[in-house]
Amino acid sequence: MYIINSPRDVQDMARGAVVLGTGGGGDPYIGELLVAAEVANGNFPKIISCDEIGDDDFVLVFAGVGAPSILVENLLSKTAMLRVLARAEAHFDRRVDALLCMEIGGANSMMPLALGAISGVPVLDADGIGRALPQLNMTTFSIHGCPVTPSILMEERGNVVTIEASDDKMAEDISRAATIAMGAGAFCMMYPMSGKRAREVTIHGTISQTLEIGRAIREGRNSHGDPFDNLLRYLNSWPDRTAKIIFDGKIVDVTHEIRNGWHWGQARLQPLNGGGDDCVIEIQNEFTIARINGETATIVPDLITVLDRESAEPLTSDMLAYGQRVKVLSYSCDPVLRRPEALDVLGPRAFGFDEDFRPMEELLGLREPQQAVG
Amino acid sequence: MYIINSPRDVQDMARGAVVLGTGGGGDPYIGELLVAAEVANGNFPKIISCDEIGDDDFVLVFAGVGAPSILVENLLSKTAMLRVLARAEAHFDRRVDALLCMEIGGANSMMPLALGAISGVPVLDADGIGRALPQLNMTTFSIHGCPVTPSILMEERGNVVTIEASDDKMAEDISRAATIAMGAGAFCMMYPMSGKRAREVTIHGTISQTLEIGRAIREGRNSHGDPFDNLLRYLNSWPDRTAKIIFDGKIVDVTHEIRNGWHWGQARLQPLNGGGDDCVIEIQNEFTIARINGETATIVPDLITVLDRESAEPLTSDMLAYGQRVKVLSYSCDPVLRRPEALDVLGPRAFGFDEDFRPMEELLGLREPQQAVG
Repeated sequence: MYIINSPRDVQDMARGAVVLGTGGGGDPYIGELLVAAEVANGNFPKIISCDEIGDDDFVLVFAGVGAPSILVENLLSKTAMLRVLARAEAHFDRRVDALLCMEIGGANSMMPLALGAISGVPVLDADGIGRALPQLNMTTFSIHGCPVTPSILMEERGNVVTIEASDDKMAEDISRAATIAMGAGAFCMMYPMSGKRAREVTIHGTISQTLEIGRAIREGRNSHGDPFDNLLRYLNSWPDRTAKIIFDGKIVDVTHEIRNGWHWGQARLQPLNGGGDDCVIEIQNEFTIARINGETATIVPDLITVLDRESAEPLTSDMLAYGQRVKVLSYSCDPVLRRPEALDVLGPRAFGFDEDFRPMEELLGLREPQQAVG
Repeated sequence: MYIINSPRDVQDMARGAVVLGTGGGGDPYIGELLVAAEVANGNFPKIISCDEIGDDDFVLVFAGVGAPSILVENLLSKTAMLRVLARAEAHFDRRVDALLCMEIGGANSMMPLALGAISGVPVLDADGIGRALPQLNMTTFSIHGCPVTPSILMEERGNVVTIEASDDKMAEDISRAATIAMGAGAFCMMYPMSGKRAREVTIHGTISQTLEIGRAIREGRNSHGDPFDNLLRYLNSWPDRTAKIIFDGKIVDVTHEIRNGWHWGQARLQPLNGGGDDCVIEIQNEFTIARINGETATIVPDLITVLDRESAEPLTSDMLAYGQRVKVLSYSCDPVLRRPEALDVLGPRAFGFDEDFRPMEELLGLREPQQAVG
């Protein structure tokens, strides 16, 4: 177990969460402020590793649901967060022993930390995806057969919706519809599971990973070196993971469109020195595909992150604008997400692309094509 | 208390429910079949009057929610109906002593009778509107301050959504959104109330009224007289209520459109003998306004019903077609619905009309204009 007791750590974690957000998941800034305020008041989030959780402990996922822009504009209410925790404990008739993060990328990285700081309930050092993804059912929890519901949705004015769904996609559909009816922003307690199950179905160590990513960038800047060197060294130190800068240039064209409640768009990059190369990044909330000279270079669920080319500050998809000088980072996803049953739910075809997943290591020629991990 | 033990009674009730449905509320035909089948098997719905319910008895509204066309196409499941009753009893931790009808007009007239027949739970001879209206919060229950929620929505595949809403409009919005996500048809147990409260907030005797309306039409036909004579005699026998045929002719034009999940349209009628008069009826699920030669003749929440001019068979709004020979019935609504607090929720302006409510008795010159009942 360790505690987060420094505002700098909170800032590092938020920066790391944007890197893992692959352009989506919402900006963790408001959550960062709330956690930092709690830390300043001596309410430190406690992080426990998956080895420290008891087999029979009760674990619940805590997340914000809805449009990230609403969660950002409608400041988080501590009271509402405590209320949904209390309601969940009443519903399940037991104490919550640990909070779990649904997706470590973006705003939802901060939600369990904020509630953990406010309530004193420890936060498990893990999450359900190792990145950001746009639907409640796109998680390793669901892929391993741990259902989203019973879940409790709560909104600040006191609307409470308890859901038991026939399957996880239905849970997503009902939650989304109810959240929009309530004004597009709500808190959710979901994925009830035991400590033993949590150990089995989560991606471990990802809360720490945000801290370490954010720290690697910051320390790289402060050492007057290239922050990308530090960042790549850290990302490549994870077993079975590969990180590489796949493009360095400026944004020469970018489109943004809100359609069906999603942020769609495309960014086109060219090298700073001119030349014929170009890189096109597809946006569907997250960055889903990066193509270099028309060839797929990285594709979802592998991670694509766009960062300022000097400071290595990661950018969310809605921040992209003409003229920005950026580097594009490609990072292999957790091996679990490359399994066929995972790709069915969150692979390229789930996003409407007529293209199969291929690992970034193969696409970039870093290793020979091989069978997907089975 | 009385029981419904004859298939003819069930048929009469369904016919009466279409009259009170004022064109909307869905066709009660499927519910009629289910109730008739139960009656044929000796499972008779028990109807109890508001005088017979105990002060401390527990009453719940049972209704179908969603698109009437889905409820008609997706045959009602007895198991699902019993399940939602059992879930409601578990949620409130008490037995349901009587079922209550939300709206007596249209398909929801039959729902409590069907569940009453299947489960043996009596049905209160009352409802929350005395007609059909398109939203869960448009009821005398809500107008009297009896909240829609806690409510339980359930759908056949086993999706269950429990709602506690901050207000009744929000209850409607969340229920509607969740129902659409589940496939546009669900059962709902809602408006939990005591027997005493039910006596105070309902319109009394409306289950019996459907039976008596249907019977009046049938007996009128069988007596080889004009069924309209019988129908008008019955409707005008209710204290404080007035019924009148306001137009007799044929449909010369009709438009239907589905927009925002509503059935919108307009029907234009002319006299059979030609001549310059015309009657235009606005459709917004229900018939909302009848205008004769451009002058408002009846306006929501007063009732407008279109019936076949020979058989007096009432027609739902989606049945209207070019060439039909029909009579238009205007029927004053229950006096409670004419109170200012009721008109705020279900008067013409709630349907987007820039026009105040005026009683049909005044509009038709049957009495001098007077202050609305306060």
